[in-house]
Amino acid sequence: MSDAVFDFTVTHTAGRSRCGVMTTAHGRVETPAFMPVGTQGTVKALTHRDLESLGAQVLLCNTYHLYLRPGDDLISRRGGVHNFIGWTKPILTDSGGYQVFSLAARRHIDEEGVSFRSHLDGSLHRLVPEKATDIQARLGSDIAMVLDECLAYPAERDSVRTSMARTLRWARRARERMQQVRAGLVPDLVVANVGQAQFGIVQGGVFHDLREESAIGTVALGFDGYAIGGLSVGEPVEVMYDTVDRTIRCLPAHQPRYLMGAGTPEDLIEAIARGVDLFDCVLPTRNARNGQLFTSQGRINIKNARYAEDDRPLDPACECYTCRSHSRAYLRHLFRAGEMNAATLNTLHNLHFYLDTLRRIREAIMGGRFEGFRQIFLRQLTPQRGTEPERTRKSLGITRQHF
Amino acid sequence: MSDAVFDFTVTHTAGRSRCGVMTTAHGRVETPAFMPVGTQGTVKALTHRDLESLGAQVLLCNTYHLYLRPGDDLISRRGGVHNFIGWTKPILTDSGGYQVFSLAARRHIDEEGVSFRSHLDGSLHRLVPEKATDIQARLGSDIAMVLDECLAYPAERDSVRTSMARTLRWARRARERMQQVRAGLVPDLVVANVGQAQFGIVQGGVFHDLREESAIGTVALGFDGYAIGGLSVGEPVEVMYDTVDRTIRCLPAHQPRYLMGAGTPEDLIEAIARGVDLFDCVLPTRNARNGQLFTSQGRINIKNARYAEDDRPLDPACECYTCRSHSRAYLRHLFRAGEMNAATLNTLHNLHFYLDTLRRIREAIMGGRFEGFRQIFLRQLTPQRGTEPERTRKSLGITRQHF
Repeated sequence: MSDAVFDFTVTHTAGRSRCGVMTTAHGRVETPAFMPVGTQGTVKALTHRDLESLGAQVLLCNTYHLYLRPGDDLISRRGGVHNFIGWTKPILTDSGGYQVFSLAARRHIDEEGVSFRSHLDGSLHRLVPEKATDIQARLGSDIAMVLDECLAYPAERDSVRTSMARTLRWARRARERMQQVRAGLVPDLVVANVGQAQFGIVQGGVFHDLREESAIGTVALGFDGYAIGGLSVGEPVEVMYDTVDRTIRCLPAHQPRYLMGAGTPEDLIEAIARGVDLFDCVLPTRNARNGQLFTSQGRINIKNARYAEDDRPLDPACECYTCRSHSRAYLRHLFRAGEMNAATLNTLHNLHFYLDTLRRIREAIMGGRFEGFRQIFLRQLTPQRGTEPERTRKSLGITRQHF
Repeated sequence: MSDAVFDFTVTHTAGRSRCGVMTTAHGRVETPAFMPVGTQGTVKALTHRDLESLGAQVLLCNTYHLYLRPGDDLISRRGGVHNFIGWTKPILTDSGGYQVFSLAARRHIDEEGVSFRSHLDGSLHRLVPEKATDIQARLGSDIAMVLDECLAYPAERDSVRTSMARTLRWARRARERMQQVRAGLVPDLVVANVGQAQFGIVQGGVFHDLREESAIGTVALGFDGYAIGGLSVGEPVEVMYDTVDRTIRCLPAHQPRYLMGAGTPEDLIEAIARGVDLFDCVLPTRNARNGQLFTSQGRINIKNARYAEDDRPLDPACECYTCRSHSRAYLRHLFRAGEMNAATLNTLHNLHFYLDTLRRIREAIMGGRFEGFRQIFLRQLTPQRGTEPERTRKSLGITRQHF
């Protein structure tokens, strides 16, 4: 068993932004890429065929949720998460850590790992770096993440340093466990995907020296890719961009870089300008279910009475099924009437906006026009006074969402 | 303005069952046909493209719901219900009467019409035959229904007779109003669909002589088609079949016959054997959302623990997207996890089962093999002892659902 199947090749660069191809056991992903969040094995309100029609190339599933229900053992007996959910393209699983720290009813962290109670039934569970590795091996995702500790923002420098150092020790244990898993040395562990890759996670809050220390230590462990964790948790966006900038300078150029939990369309383009390759965020899908829609001209809250008799599509520039088929008036009606189809149509639109934006960014990088694209894109998102769909960063929600 | 566009042609008969083509202002419908219920302008949990992919040829929308929200005036300003919801094929609207009698918070009936309070906000409304006609003219459905009184089951013969006679008087008023609407004699009424047809409704409970009286009186008013109302409301199925049988003998052979609110797969095939052309029922869509799935071998309750590790599709004989893509184990997981996608996948399957069954029935009638098809179909729905998906008529719910 080996991870030789996993590969990442940078194909184009434009400044510090880059295009690449990530090859996994379940196919290729063109980067920069946005990974829709399929927490419980499905993107909420979408079928897989809807998701494929949007051009999604990779799906994120949450280990915490699948571990609790239906259980990694059951999924392993089904032949792994791809078989179980019927999604044939690449899947990335997180480690479960973020959900434990943000979602579990109660949790207690120690040097070995973290104990917590399920948000579903209060049952007691324990997650340690080795177990997080094993669970993901049973799930058989294409990319597994190491268990890390996630701090709230703001946090004191001392606690960030302590936490970062522990995350680094956990990363070493997770990496060693992965080597044992690959060598078939873990008894009774059925590996669902022998080509599974493993990514390390850089922590260190907003302290640049701690980020550098974390990055250097994590890279030394030799992962298949590197994530930047602990951002998009409430810090000012400029602080986030600066931290991404400083962190990436310590990451190897030939491996994928994944900014976890980000973010707004602006966050994506700014992080790509700094060299990020992968993103995940619930913002497009969760906002869709709440009636908050992204357009090329800014944001629309479809609940607003101003749309009651508006026969225009959400975004006249958009080619998605929702915009080609339905008016704002109808979408507002469905939302007010509590129809599930509102969530589906809104999610189709928001995910199309994200995935199509990434596609256009890739084309801009490949065509050497990224910087110009970035300026126009950001300017369009901030409409002039008096034009219609208004938008404020704050109301978009810039904090990372849990699931 | 005229209804000359509306046409119905019987193309094949087999015994008393028949195939036909119903032509409306928005296209053709092959009969016998099942009309999925899109209460508030969408079939719950499905996009229109999902619905079209299932081969749905006609959609039913509920006048009561659309009148209350977003309002027939607003829909009229959008150019009618087709424009508003983005569905280009035929639409039938009910009169609103059934929902008023079963759903409204309080209602009071008198000779003129019925007063009721909205289930949404308690506001007071009044529906009379003329208004039900006008509302549907504003909506612009392809087939409008007359306002009728719907009695609960069981009901005394005297009250059924009184009610049936009043429904007949209402039908005359509705028909006269429709003639005025078509002649442009109703001030300030914007007609959204000049090709709208109007169906009468036969009442009379389970009393055959009252049914005959109602049918003869309704047919004398010269509608474009005839519905059988007031069945599938809790009476024994044999009583329903007998009543359908007796009623249809009084209806013209060259016009469409619509059994309102029915029913189970068995109900459909039995009614078709007696000459019914059109059906609507929430059973496939509502049961889907509750995890009750129809298969060629009987019924499956996907919540059942026996399906937790069942890698088979819901129905190995089924060609729907759900059965081609997903296992019972995954569908159970999605249902337990409360994912909207469970409702979507289950609804896709159940509606496929209904629409595909109707398609196969049409082929059997055209091929002169309907009676053989009927026997095999009914036998398969009742599995032998010891085989897996059990099914009882009772647990399927044979009473008409409200929305």
